[in-house]
Amino acid sequence: MIKANAHYFDLSPNYLFQDIAKRVKAFKAENPQADVISLGVGDVTLPIPAAAVKAMHKAADEMLDAKTMRGYGPEQGYPFLLEAIVENDYKAIGIDIRPEDVFVSDGAKCDVGNIQEIFDASVSVAVPDPVYPVYRDTNIMAGRKVSFLPSTAETGFSPALPDKAFDLIYLCSPNNPTGAVMTRDQLAQWVEYARRNKSVIIFDSAYKAYIRTPGIPESIYEIPGAKECAIELRSFSKTAGFTGVRCAYMVVPESLKALSPSGEEVPLNRLWSRRHTTKFNGVAYIVQRAAEAVFSDEGKEQVKAMTDYYMENARLIREGLADKGFTAYGGVDAPYIWLATPEGMSSVALFEKFLTEAQIICTPGSGFGACGEGYVRLTSFNTRENTLKALDRIGGLNR
Amino acid sequence: MIKANAHYFDLSPNYLFQDIAKRVKAFKAENPQADVISLGVGDVTLPIPAAAVKAMHKAADEMLDAKTMRGYGPEQGYPFLLEAIVENDYKAIGIDIRPEDVFVSDGAKCDVGNIQEIFDASVSVAVPDPVYPVYRDTNIMAGRKVSFLPSTAETGFSPALPDKAFDLIYLCSPNNPTGAVMTRDQLAQWVEYARRNKSVIIFDSAYKAYIRTPGIPESIYEIPGAKECAIELRSFSKTAGFTGVRCAYMVVPESLKALSPSGEEVPLNRLWSRRHTTKFNGVAYIVQRAAEAVFSDEGKEQVKAMTDYYMENARLIREGLADKGFTAYGGVDAPYIWLATPEGMSSVALFEKFLTEAQIICTPGSGFGACGEGYVRLTSFNTRENTLKALDRIGGLNR
Repeated sequence: MIKANAHYFDLSPNYLFQDIAKRVKAFKAENPQADVISLGVGDVTLPIPAAAVKAMHKAADEMLDAKTMRGYGPEQGYPFLLEAIVENDYKAIGIDIRPEDVFVSDGAKCDVGNIQEIFDASVSVAVPDPVYPVYRDTNIMAGRKVSFLPSTAETGFSPALPDKAFDLIYLCSPNNPTGAVMTRDQLAQWVEYARRNKSVIIFDSAYKAYIRTPGIPESIYEIPGAKECAIELRSFSKTAGFTGVRCAYMVVPESLKALSPSGEEVPLNRLWSRRHTTKFNGVAYIVQRAAEAVFSDEGKEQVKAMTDYYMENARLIREGLADKGFTAYGGVDAPYIWLATPEGMSSVALFEKFLTEAQIICTPGSGFGACGEGYVRLTSFNTRENTLKALDRIGGLNR
Repeated sequence: MIKANAHYFDLSPNYLFQDIAKRVKAFKAENPQADVISLGVGDVTLPIPAAAVKAMHKAADEMLDAKTMRGYGPEQGYPFLLEAIVENDYKAIGIDIRPEDVFVSDGAKCDVGNIQEIFDASVSVAVPDPVYPVYRDTNIMAGRKVSFLPSTAETGFSPALPDKAFDLIYLCSPNNPTGAVMTRDQLAQWVEYARRNKSVIIFDSAYKAYIRTPGIPESIYEIPGAKECAIELRSFSKTAGFTGVRCAYMVVPESLKALSPSGEEVPLNRLWSRRHTTKFNGVAYIVQRAAEAVFSDEGKEQVKAMTDYYMENARLIREGLADKGFTAYGGVDAPYIWLATPEGMSSVALFEKFLTEAQIICTPGSGFGACGEGYVRLTSFNTRENTLKALDRIGGLNR
């Protein structure tokens, strides 16, 4: 009989998140009148920028005429979008990235899941703990062992440099779930580490539009030498509310190399290009036009207003929780607040207390890894009204 | 230094297709006045159905309002589209497929490239020759050896059953590039083979909308027992001209099993679901609404008119070539015509003759595999006017 991929059986199903979802469902069924507010999900709620919708309408009409309809586009993305990305996300902050280094895709989840394919099954992998589970699971699916880099209060919720040399390291800043950001110094240390060990960093900056503190790097390429050791991921999902529109991109600089079986140093850009053109057929034309519009003056203003709205929610949650005697992290340069549970209380116990006593949904930190125990994640993506209501209820809790 | 995936170095770059593209470019540069007509590319040229564009406009407007905007959708696809697929593509022809068996994606290329991941690296793989290169290349990338099943004039341009038991077999009907279709009897033999050997068939029916001969199966599930041995791929690309819109789906029936490392029979549906939810985040809402509209009465009429137009081109090419003394296959239930080169002439030589003497682009069959030598592929996706002009020129060729 045909054999299944044995590595899939090494995956541990995330029973916690499944149990949480079941618990919320059961609570709602038992309490149909309860006004349950979710600060749990990481999905946006505001409409997408009007500039993007306008571009979609125009592109949809183009598909109605044989002269303007678009069939297969370049797998890597249309030049108009590659140019807009390079100009606005890089040249504007003094970074020189070539359009040929950028690969447009339908999501950062896909990119971060697929990128490991171009590396040997034997490479050593390190991911932060707590972590977005896709970094870990996609490497396990490929038969790799994954090591964890603790991101705790002691390390400022970003991983500290390990003693060991890992080949492939995933970093995420602004961080999901801790809401921490890495400083220029921290990133510079990682770049130095990676160059010394000839490793590759996968730098996930999907939340870069939420950075508000001057001097916090938006891109790892702000660090000299990063183009020799880092791949960067970006997404329109959290920048422009495109979670239901699906557009992202990944930068694989030409100068980034890996070792071929014959001992040659080969550009990863060439390998990723082979992967991308063999297993992917490009992002919908209409979606690429919508993404391009995010970079228009109108689009930029709308994105700023949207992310400002969420960041004001984040400030209200962070400060509101502090007023009420809670210890909370994040929420300054990220839409996530990492709330420490009261002394001796587990993540799941605080989740349960919030749900039953305040009808608020949060995400237990232990679902993101062992180091997430003792925290819950709150998100700033709900409405202002619900966010304030949730804070009021938390304030009224019996401590 | 971090090691690259060694298997990528086992891929043979398709120099032929690259050389052909360069040759065409050079010819056009040397002959700027030449009216070059392409019957080479497999991309559509007619506008997409108006019903789909209407649905796109409506969905785009929904994204403008917080009450109707859609964020992350279910990775597997929205229930409205899953239901439409099950009803129209299966129940309508008497096949019972559950919505849970269907996975919506952004392209058949992605699906056919990714599906091999859920199988062990050790499984034996067979693909037809000539073949859509993605079947072959994605297995080589995963470290598998690939065997070829000749599809020649002797076998009716569909592969004959091999003596050996292969674990994973790719079949494509209507076929790209040969334009052949598999009969019910042929498919039944493959299903029997797969069940006997406990193999899995990946059945690519991306071109099923072009079948015109009564009795030719549109779906492998028309064959009893196929749900125990086959995964089926479909695409809106060639059905509804969605090559630039990006929507497809794959059916993985619950009853299809593979062997786990501990010797249990596990449903492939569960493994694919794990893969799909871990590495993919669903198709754009607006695209899923456009795909749903393809199944409306208006959409169905528009699809029929579009495919009829292309199939009339196919008939003109097929019959026109026969009148001119050529031997051509396909073009009856597929948009591809598989033209035998004149005695003793190679694929590339006929390509060159067509280009230089008639300013027509075709695709040399040898690019699709060794058994493609002696043929060129012509497509019916150009306009009626250009198709007729091309035939006239071929008729005037010095034989």
